[in-house]
Amino acid sequence: MKAVCVVHNETSTGSVSPIAQVRQAIDAAGHPALLMVDTISGLASIDFRFDEWGVDVAVSGSQKGLMLPPGLSFNAVSNKAFEVSKTGGMRRSYWDWQEMAAINPTGYFPYTPGTNMLYGLNEAIAMLHEEGLDNVFARHQRHGAATRAAVRHWGLEVLCRQQGQESGVLTAVLVPEGHSADAFRATALQHYDISLGNGLSKVADKVFRIGHLGDINDLTLAGTLTGVELGLRKSGIPHSEGGVAAAMAELECTRFEPLAAE
Amino acid sequence: MKAVCVVHNETSTGSVSPIAQVRQAIDAAGHPALLMVDTISGLASIDFRFDEWGVDVAVSGSQKGLMLPPGLSFNAVSNKAFEVSKTGGMRRSYWDWQEMAAINPTGYFPYTPGTNMLYGLNEAIAMLHEEGLDNVFARHQRHGAATRAAVRHWGLEVLCRQQGQESGVLTAVLVPEGHSADAFRATALQHYDISLGNGLSKVADKVFRIGHLGDINDLTLAGTLTGVELGLRKSGIPHSEGGVAAAMAELECTRFEPLAAE
Amino acid sequence: MKAVCVVHNETSTGSVSPIAQVRQAIDAAGHPALLMVDTISGLASIDFRFDEWGVDVAVSGSQKGLMLPPGLSFNAVSNKAFEVSKTGGMRRSYWDWQEMAAINPTGYFPYTPGTNMLYGLNEAIAMLHEEGLDNVFARHQRHGAATRAAVRHWGLEVLCRQQGQESGVLTAVLVPEGHSADAFRATALQHYDISLGNGLSKVADKVFRIGHLGDINDLTLAGTLTGVELGLRKSGIPHSEGGVAAAMAELECTRFEPLAAE
Amino acid sequence: MKAVCVVHNETSTGSVSPIAQVRQAIDAAGHPALLMVDTISGLASIDFRFDEWGVDVAVSGSQKGLMLPPGLSFNAVSNKAFEVSKTGGMRRSYWDWQEMAAINPTGYFPYTPGTNMLYGLNEAIAMLHEEGLDNVFARHQRHGAATRAAVRHWGLEVLCRQQGQESGVLTAVLVPEGHSADAFRATALQHYDISLGNGLSKVADKVFRIGHLGDINDLTLAGTLTGVELGLRKSGIPHSEGGVAAAMAELECTRFEPLAAE
Repeated sequence: MKAVCVVHNETSTGSVSPIAQVRQAIDAAGHPALLMVDTISGLASIDFRFDEWGVDVAVSGSQKGLMLPPGLSFNAVSNKAFEVSKTGGMRRSYWDWQEMAAINPTGYFPYTPGTNMLYGLNEAIAMLHEEGLDNVFARHQRHGAATRAAVRHWGLEVLCRQQGQESGVLTAVLVPEGHSADAFRATALQHYDISLGNGLSKVADKVFRIGHLGDINDLTLAGTLTGVELGLRKSGIPHSEGGVAAAMAELECTRFEPLAAE
Repeated sequence: MKAVCVVHNETSTGSVSPIAQVRQAIDAAGHPALLMVDTISGLASIDFRFDEWGVDVAVSGSQKGLMLPPGLSFNAVSNKAFEVSKTGGMRRSYWDWQEMAAINPTGYFPYTPGTNMLYGLNEAIAMLHEEGLDNVFARHQRHGAATRAAVRHWGLEVLCRQQGQESGVLTAVLVPEGHSADAFRATALQHYDISLGNGLSKVADKVFRIGHLGDINDLTLAGTLTGVELGLRKSGIPHSEGGVAAAMAELECTRFEPLAAE
Repeated sequence: MKAVCVVHNETSTGSVSPIAQVRQAIDAAGHPALLMVDTISGLASIDFRFDEWGVDVAVSGSQKGLMLPPGLSFNAVSNKAFEVSKTGGMRRSYWDWQEMAAINPTGYFPYTPGTNMLYGLNEAIAMLHEEGLDNVFARHQRHGAATRAAVRHWGLEVLCRQQGQESGVLTAVLVPEGHSADAFRATALQHYDISLGNGLSKVADKVFRIGHLGDINDLTLAGTLTGVELGLRKSGIPHSEGGVAAAMAELECTRFEPLAAE
Repeated sequence: MKAVCVVHNETSTGSVSPIAQVRQAIDAAGHPALLMVDTISGLASIDFRFDEWGVDVAVSGSQKGLMLPPGLSFNAVSNKAFEVSKTGGMRRSYWDWQEMAAINPTGYFPYTPGTNMLYGLNEAIAMLHEEGLDNVFARHQRHGAATRAAVRHWGLEVLCRQQGQESGVLTAVLVPEGHSADAFRATALQHYDISLGNGLSKVADKVFRIGHLGDINDLTLAGTLTGVELGLRKSGIPHSEGGVAAAMAELECTRFEPLAAE
């Protein structure tokens, strides 16, 4: 059995993969591959539809859109994938779905569960429903668009070039040739107490990442983008000032009346 | 016995009283009045010198510069005031210094103390010393100056007109004639989730107040001022945009290398 | 205007005053005195009926039966007392009911409220109602009776000699002549990590106090009484061993099926 | 490569395995097997010496003697085991020591670490050193001995029959033939709010387990054993009353002056 593995929200690049289209492509090819999706940083910030999109295995975690400390990981598994896992042949113990599924109907776990985290999860889910999932998703989209407006105003380049696939969770930004993204990040941290994500592997030291997920609002984003702009100035990275104002203007254009929460 | 009562940091107007000069004026007049100072919102954010300035009674609280919940109040009392209190004649019980002073040397209180708050106070004082008191005071001064730079840029008026006496703890801002400060505050809260202080008594509905005290930094201030600017726009209060940028420019001018903490 | 002041649950002696009978005695005498009751350690552990018993002023606090840290105090005031307070003549400020009552209908306070404590109070009240107030009161009564059974078994004397007025909140115990209650308390603390209350004023060093209020159950009480019994032995205070077992036997006799909570 | 796998403290039976002797037996047989030890419930409650006893792989967790919520797991790995793991051949990712070891010297983790738990671990270790590890171990031994004294007094049987290998972490107790351990556990929980461990696999419903690990002291243990004794009575399981007193007598015999903490 083969599988196509896709990351829903790519935290290293700030792009969102079109999961439903990947499924359609697999089906169009008549291939029996499982569709496995990593939605660790996507779930609860970006729309994700396990059944509707035909996903076979999804993995997520507590420490991103669910606004909890690290410590919980989740699997959603299709019947097809569950059957396949019985005969997969790879030795495993803690990760074995069979033991988990066998005891799940009783409300228990085969191993010591992270009880404290489960209480937190309960509250996080209540908060998400209180705001309304559609409002949560729209908020992230607005903040992504506003961040990109700031980046364009600065004259810098967003790493994700595919329009419509930019992430509402984070934005990866390229620094100009001849400048070090990591030196910029160190300067911003030292002078403005803001911790920005680093570029990974191929874009190491070429990219910094601005997170805009979880429990944030327009003003938190304004503070964040101000930190980036002041850091650019302090680091001597060429840019046009006024990116924060551009972001705020974008936010005003896309301001919406929140839908009544479910 | 008479007393001169002064508020160190006036939270309703955003101005700082020159305590040492009040003492000098009392002494120059040869008057025996006690000098009583309310430094509830001043202590730990603005320099305050009980002995050096000749204060007789100071009162403060936990919920401002000490960064704790409300619940603790403090008195500092000179020997002179302590003696006077023995013969003051006003009936009192819980507020009586004599009972408190009698048991204080044993490390205990005559009544049930707010133990949890005392643990918090211990930590708050440790945080202040870790940053260094002079750095804490300088940080508040910078944030006050930056906020006033924003207000001037907006074309609005700071309530405190006495240069040099503007508070580093909060800034009270007059809205133009014909506009309601309270309506503006309600709009800002509704749309940008920012809670601004209201004008009190004579300046009710004419003034709003921006707090910049406690555990805040340049970027938190930027988020705050962005909320004010967006709220002004949304409320239709005439102003020049760009106040946040003006504040940040001011912060850059006055940026300093923190002194080594004590 | 005169007042009769009574303590509902006397923490220094472990006795409960019959408030309703005090009211009847005042009324029988045709005296207009106000009835003022301190129910700081009684409220939420022992039945208290402000209206039904004809109390004029009641004072309570957060740190006993309400299971919160110290920090909140409460007044209940009859119309009669409220009217009297307007002309009482004593100078006061923070404690003035008029200012509090004037703003109360708006849901606000005239001074900075202890917001964090109010959230805690909300939860404490929910917990009390979840258990059911009658069940809470019965639980305290049982624990008081069980503690007295232990004391009798030890051959020691309960300070409160009036049957029916012993407190369900705490039990004060006399140590035999020639022994120091404070030395015993120090021994128990050092060896068994249990902090017992001291005797106050007239019974200083003659009495120790066992608290059994708030969020405790049969087994917590067993641990507490074990600490007392081990401390008695270690201190060489003559006593019959087996007090904990006697207490548990008493608990079994008085075990009840909790009523359905309201 | 083969391995001998041993559980240091067996939570299902309440017995401690002699790890050093297992090592000696392996060595005496001239066998190259790795010695792998599960000390999940042993570490920080019972003496464990990785280097001195010649262990190759140890696994532990945060939720037992380290007094934290579940969420962290630890490996200690000998050089020999580390070398073997490079060629083990089993596919793995998250559990792979190589990636972890490669980045460890920098103070970082290859995956998102449970940061909050690491702060808690820091504090837990400080608490253990404050008490002194030898005192912590002695405390657990005393509590185990006292619990067994109670069980013997009740006339019940401790599951672990090997003298000297009984656990200081928990005690598994056999209920008499014809009685259900699980029914007893349900009764104790319902009436006395005490949650006892269940028997696993072969001793299911025949055994209940009393935990005495982590942040407990003599009086907490007394409360625990009282709950068991009251539960036995309520369940109609034949037993001699007075087990708690027997446990306390044992504690007095073995009382010691704590060594000065390191």
